[in-house]
Amino acid sequence: MDNKIKIFDSTLRDGAQGEGISFSVTDKLKIVTALDNLGVAYIEAGNPGSNIKDLRFFQELKSIKLKNSKIVSFGSTRRKNISVEEDNNIASLLEAGTSAMAIFGKTWDFHVTDIIKTSLDENLRMIYDTILYLKEKGKEVIFDAEHFFDGYKANPKYALKTLDTAMAAGTDTIVLCDTNGGTFPDEIYEITKKICSSFNVEIGIHCHNDCGMAVANSIMAVKSGATHVQGTYIGIGERCGNANLSTIIPNLQLKMNLNCIPEDQIRNLSSTARYITEISNLQPQHNMPYVGKGAFAHKGGMHIDGVSKASSSFEHISPELVGNKRRFLMSEVSGKSTVLPLIKKVDKNISKNSPKAQKIIDKLKELEHMGYQYEGAEASFELVIRKQLGKYISPFKIDYFKTIGEHSIIGQDFTASSIIKVIVDGKEEITAEQGNGPVNALNKSLRKALEVFYPELKEVYLTDYKVRVLDAENATSAKVRVLIESTDGKESWTTVGVSTDIIEASLIALRDSIEYKLIK
Amino acid sequence: MDNKIKIFDSTLRDGAQGEGISFSVTDKLKIVTALDNLGVAYIEAGNPGSNIKDLRFFQELKSIKLKNSKIVSFGSTRRKNISVEEDNNIASLLEAGTSAMAIFGKTWDFHVTDIIKTSLDENLRMIYDTILYLKEKGKEVIFDAEHFFDGYKANPKYALKTLDTAMAAGTDTIVLCDTNGGTFPDEIYEITKKICSSFNVEIGIHCHNDCGMAVANSIMAVKSGATHVQGTYIGIGERCGNANLSTIIPNLQLKMNLNCIPEDQIRNLSSTARYITEISNLQPQHNMPYVGKGAFAHKGGMHIDGVSKASSSFEHISPELVGNKRRFLMSEVSGKSTVLPLIKKVDKNISKNSPKAQKIIDKLKELEHMGYQYEGAEASFELVIRKQLGKYISPFKIDYFKTIGEHSIIGQDFTASSIIKVIVDGKEEITAEQGNGPVNALNKSLRKALEVFYPELKEVYLTDYKVRVLDAENATSAKVRVLIESTDGKESWTTVGVSTDIIEASLIALRDSIEYKLIK
Repeated sequence: MDNKIKIFDSTLRDGAQGEGISFSVTDKLKIVTALDNLGVAYIEAGNPGSNIKDLRFFQELKSIKLKNSKIVSFGSTRRKNISVEEDNNIASLLEAGTSAMAIFGKTWDFHVTDIIKTSLDENLRMIYDTILYLKEKGKEVIFDAEHFFDGYKANPKYALKTLDTAMAAGTDTIVLCDTNGGTFPDEIYEITKKICSSFNVEIGIHCHNDCGMAVANSIMAVKSGATHVQGTYIGIGERCGNANLSTIIPNLQLKMNLNCIPEDQIRNLSSTARYITEISNLQPQHNMPYVGKGAFAHKGGMHIDGVSKASSSFEHISPELVGNKRRFLMSEVSGKSTVLPLIKKVDKNISKNSPKAQKIIDKLKELEHMGYQYEGAEASFELVIRKQLGKYISPFKIDYFKTIGEHSIIGQDFTASSIIKVIVDGKEEITAEQGNGPVNALNKSLRKALEVFYPELKEVYLTDYKVRVLDAENATSAKVRVLIESTDGKESWTTVGVSTDIIEASLIALRDSIEYKLIK
Repeated sequence: MDNKIKIFDSTLRDGAQGEGISFSVTDKLKIVTALDNLGVAYIEAGNPGSNIKDLRFFQELKSIKLKNSKIVSFGSTRRKNISVEEDNNIASLLEAGTSAMAIFGKTWDFHVTDIIKTSLDENLRMIYDTILYLKEKGKEVIFDAEHFFDGYKANPKYALKTLDTAMAAGTDTIVLCDTNGGTFPDEIYEITKKICSSFNVEIGIHCHNDCGMAVANSIMAVKSGATHVQGTYIGIGERCGNANLSTIIPNLQLKMNLNCIPEDQIRNLSSTARYITEISNLQPQHNMPYVGKGAFAHKGGMHIDGVSKASSSFEHISPELVGNKRRFLMSEVSGKSTVLPLIKKVDKNISKNSPKAQKIIDKLKELEHMGYQYEGAEASFELVIRKQLGKYISPFKIDYFKTIGEHSIIGQDFTASSIIKVIVDGKEEITAEQGNGPVNALNKSLRKALEVFYPELKEVYLTDYKVRVLDAENATSAKVRVLIESTDGKESWTTVGVSTDIIEASLIALRDSIEYKLIK
């Protein structure tokens, strides 16, 4: 063994089965890129047979070159009572064109007889035919032994026979799945150990979190010999989710010295988790092990005192290892060392203890308290620093704006209009525009007004617009945070605005976007 | 052994160390009552020595009679180099007046020498003196062996000596604490097993979730002989939180047949989790094992098909056991078999292949193509079914609406106003309202108009408002999907609206919310 564990990420397949998850093609491409940068071994990108959109996504992936990861398509063994050549899903898998394929098959007799309703023998033939066919096509086959632990406990003889069949057909990997998430770590350990000692093939593990033990179960499987670990990067998936890879990777790599991803990528674990959370449009889970914003947040007085004397007193690892940060929740000590590199980008001469640095930190705290968050909105952050240093005054002023949405009945025609007044060098410009909703109208009118003074703004357009409701329990009167990504074709930048009024929040982010372009 | 595990809840002590947690006295009383109703053995209610508010809370608790649980106060061993009688914290503990006390002491030599900075011998005396003193006062003493696993790994001889000392002083229970949350389940199992076989006293376990394995670690400790389990009910606590008792209790009681709480209380696990989440002012974590709203939510078509045939095919337990509910989530991936159970809720006589079912599926596809998504928006979905079956015509019509947002400059005062006209039974009602942004104004004006006809709407209020930008690459002219959660104090329901105009999308979701309330 070369001390290497193959990480198999299923965010785009099993993860997409999580409640509230709905990835666009752009989202999927972003996630593939992030996971490839991190260096996981496999990225399971979808189920081309069950979903036409997934099939199209695989076509798109063909033109993309990855640095580290292998793309995997997912599908079932052939349907009962037909030949593998006749099966549309298998045809779609081949059309997806990946070199590796994850094929799930039934191993629990109850599922064969009561759910897919066929004979135990036919199920074995389904496994055999499918794997053999794909091996003959030169594919790498990862056999997902669905419900293996439940199957093994119910009918060990039959469950083992399904694995024998997969072996006989030439599978490259056998993945033991705790599909219902009901298995306990000691059972996982013992059963996986038996399989590892009886089957001369790479053994993988696929756990679900229904008993809150998916991470531990994956770890115990590795301890018993598994070398391939499936999960989703932030733990999303059916019901209670899949095993969380952002926890498993550091557990394996930092605690058990088993390589999962390139060593220099470990420090990107936290930023990758935040990025994927953002793309998934989920509320970040601050207490997520290793990568959560609060994973190294100390509140108890004795804890803060202890960590100040020796961080290992109340931290199992250094947060920097995984690109995370220590925070003290009671005393306001945090921040400066993180912010400093960004300040130095604007003015190299500012030191950690200068009053100017303190002024920026204070402003930042005030803005964060208001709901701002600058992770992923560096353009707005740079503007804050420039303004605090007195190095920047906006060349334009938005003096007045009004939006009007007028509708007859729902679903019928409507118009949204916006009027805006800007002042540049003492000159006023008042414009109006109409659009799809008030934010779109506002964006158009603001640009129209400013392009009179700055024709270079014509090359700027928006590429992303995200809304997050803060304090959702206040419902429609809650604050919203708007993130806007802009590009001029050469560079992209992201800006942020916060307000209880979505229109004002959008306008703040739009204003920052234009200001940033004008600085460049 | 009587097959009984003593559950020790620390929501009000270690849980209060979680980020963003701040309990009022009323909150604390509610949580004590909820946990007592559930029947946990111990409720750790605070640290009277470190926090004067906690001390006052204990005074208040004296007048309250609990049915099942014992209240515990928490404190440290005496300070170094003073007598136990001189220690203010110990005096506060006695003042708190509980019959049981949890006393934490150092067991890791590094903490003794480098954090509290005293001699190893003095630390033993601190443990001995404190426990002996409290035992002489007739108290039940639970000794929290802080950092025991780290201590045992660093210096087993000294760590064991601290336990010997606690035993010699007469402790009733020894709790092995994985304070930093860095220990793995197999280590927990082996070390706890050794302690259980060497010490003739009740052994407990206290885990933190920094490696995502606190639940599994607690379970493994019980498997090795521990009979007392500490945690917090929904897993809140320092950093990544404490072991989650709402997961551990059903794991022990339903899977291992070990009694933790009265049998008839198991079905209250889910409602208690939601209640404590609400009191803690946290976003519910829908994928929380057993008790989360999504713990038994199925989205994949094959999963839904399987569960419809036999629930055990994709559920490790029946959701009803823990007072939870099965849900089928709508998605593009899921087919007819997903939708059918929901259709049958409205009309039992519709079969899978009837033209009516097909008509609903077609409508659903059309709506999904427009950007609708019904998972988690069951109320809107029920309205679609009712409308397609001709079983429902809205009793009110929104005939006109207009929103106006007027601002001077950013950050200054602004007003958002809304005018709306509704028609009910041929009668018109035109109202206007102002609010925080146009959506808030619209919500207020719509309610004002409809409450004239339906006074029962006064009890409905919104509890959540979510915005998702679809095809974000179209930026401000993209479609948005708005999800609104409403409640009338008895039931909650979620509705959805889609439009390129966020105001129209919100209005559609608001209209559905009101229509659903009026059906009920």
